[in-house]
Amino acid sequence: MAVYTEINEVDLKDFLKAYDAGELMSFKGITEGVENSNFLLHTDREALILTLYEKRVDEGDLPFYLGLMEHLAEQGLSCPLPLPRHDGALYGLLCGRPAALISFLEGMWLRKSEAKHCREVGVAMAKMHLAGQDFAIRRENALSLKGWVDLWDKSAARADEVEAGLEDEITNELAYLEDHWPVDLPEGVIHADLFPDNVFFIGDELSGLIDFYFACNDFFAYDLAICLNAWCFEKDGAFNVTKARALIEGYQSVRSLSAAEVEALPLLARGSALRFFLTRLYDWLMTPEGAMVVKKDPLEYLRYLRFHRSVKSASEYGLVKA
Amino acid sequence: MAVYTEINEVDLKDFLKAYDAGELMSFKGITEGVENSNFLLHTDREALILTLYEKRVDEGDLPFYLGLMEHLAEQGLSCPLPLPRHDGALYGLLCGRPAALISFLEGMWLRKSEAKHCREVGVAMAKMHLAGQDFAIRRENALSLKGWVDLWDKSAARADEVEAGLEDEITNELAYLEDHWPVDLPEGVIHADLFPDNVFFIGDELSGLIDFYFACNDFFAYDLAICLNAWCFEKDGAFNVTKARALIEGYQSVRSLSAAEVEALPLLARGSALRFFLTRLYDWLMTPEGAMVVKKDPLEYLRYLRFHRSVKSASEYGLVKA
Repeated sequence: MAVYTEINEVDLKDFLKAYDAGELMSFKGITEGVENSNFLLHTDREALILTLYEKRVDEGDLPFYLGLMEHLAEQGLSCPLPLPRHDGALYGLLCGRPAALISFLEGMWLRKSEAKHCREVGVAMAKMHLAGQDFAIRRENALSLKGWVDLWDKSAARADEVEAGLEDEITNELAYLEDHWPVDLPEGVIHADLFPDNVFFIGDELSGLIDFYFACNDFFAYDLAICLNAWCFEKDGAFNVTKARALIEGYQSVRSLSAAEVEALPLLARGSALRFFLTRLYDWLMTPEGAMVVKKDPLEYLRYLRFHRSVKSASEYGLVKA
Repeated sequence: MAVYTEINEVDLKDFLKAYDAGELMSFKGITEGVENSNFLLHTDREALILTLYEKRVDEGDLPFYLGLMEHLAEQGLSCPLPLPRHDGALYGLLCGRPAALISFLEGMWLRKSEAKHCREVGVAMAKMHLAGQDFAIRRENALSLKGWVDLWDKSAARADEVEAGLEDEITNELAYLEDHWPVDLPEGVIHADLFPDNVFFIGDELSGLIDFYFACNDFFAYDLAICLNAWCFEKDGAFNVTKARALIEGYQSVRSLSAAEVEALPLLARGSALRFFLTRLYDWLMTPEGAMVVKKDPLEYLRYLRFHRSVKSASEYGLVKA
């Protein structure tokens, strides 16, 4: 549910005066997006998305996010394109919030994806990795090792409320990852949140990637590891190796993984599972009862983490040696 | 917030096979509507609204609601038009819910309406009253006197939790309205819920009426009385007589009120205020703490009710004698 800030037609029309976007015909709050407030606008020319950035998004990061979308679109990647204002800025202020007007991307995210879709996701992610290589701005991944430690410091003492033994298990896991985390894998701009709801399809064809608000500089293979978690587990918790193979093959059809990346994949998948486990755990513990948000179960990612801990090599992800 | 039922692309495409609506390009849950789940669809031809009727809407009433929209649109009123399926039906079944595909009406509801807009509302409502006169199906108003008594029976014992003395005040009010409620005013199909969020404007021009899911057969002047409550009180509780005058003048520019209707207006406005007070009170008392809905304050309508009780004649609504 994603309208945290209500807007009115008077302020919105004022806001639109800074753009060359046509006459406003309608706007509807939409339920997509978790961090920000999103509206679907129709003008007499086109459909647009209006995003109001809520407090979880640091305004200082907007030039990175919006500039990246512009850069990727210029490189031919299908993603939403921020409209520039008359003064050249990519965002303005609406109802006290930074707000951007972004092209509307047709397509639907798949509630029921299949292996063929995972292949397309791999292809698109690799294209994004290549297209981002000459993007000028850097943004560190705030949710890598250091961020995990910070999150864990805030949650560890209450973790056993969620499952007995969790405090010890995660403390050990974090220590292991700190000791073994790779330092020299190929890196660049990654999406870092390429879940099904951020990939649009029309029919079986991928029509674009959205929501770059976790994008950052990190290992390319870590982005792929996030997708292993986001796309390849079934609702019953089973790992679907056919989907994983399709995802990795799709990726490698555009950008080959090095031997070091392949070897690191199980560890990166553990780290990725831990990352989503920790943010969910934090939200779970900190969200007051009865708040108007759906809390996501952190234990789902604990199960993924345990699965990856049992994986001995990337061949178990269906990766066929060249 | 109005997505109670999540849908997926597979079921939606299946559902759309029964229609001639073009190829599905996107669908987004929208936050408009309170009773039902609403999605904004784009096909390669047009924008559409998909409504899934939730449990508060009786499926037996759908032929009335959807038939009425079709009838009014045929009479030239600007309102959403239900698309017929190949088999002629105006609704089908999606995710276990009755669901209709309805034309998308451009326009925005006004968060900040002025008197000139109220005039347009009066005009459009009168046109709707005339256009509905030869509609073949009848639907009794489930939220008139009899319905109020039922609601009050379920809430009276706990009313003083909300404000001391409420049980006596409302019991007396109901008795008074039962004794004095008119029996022979001009009647026909009324909207019965024409609040600002159900009237769309493009610029200052009214572009259409939506949400006919409370429509029923009742006194025309009662519909106007609902609008006095819905449109003519300011946020601070003050009654804006300029807006009321504009509303009534707009209405009478299309359909003249009889002397009996004018005389009944203050009483009808009391009844209308009581109707919204009672549904809000019921929801207030029955909604569990922490539920994911915004509870509307019933006391707002109690204040309106008290205002109308102090009104001696319709001239206090700005109505100028002919």
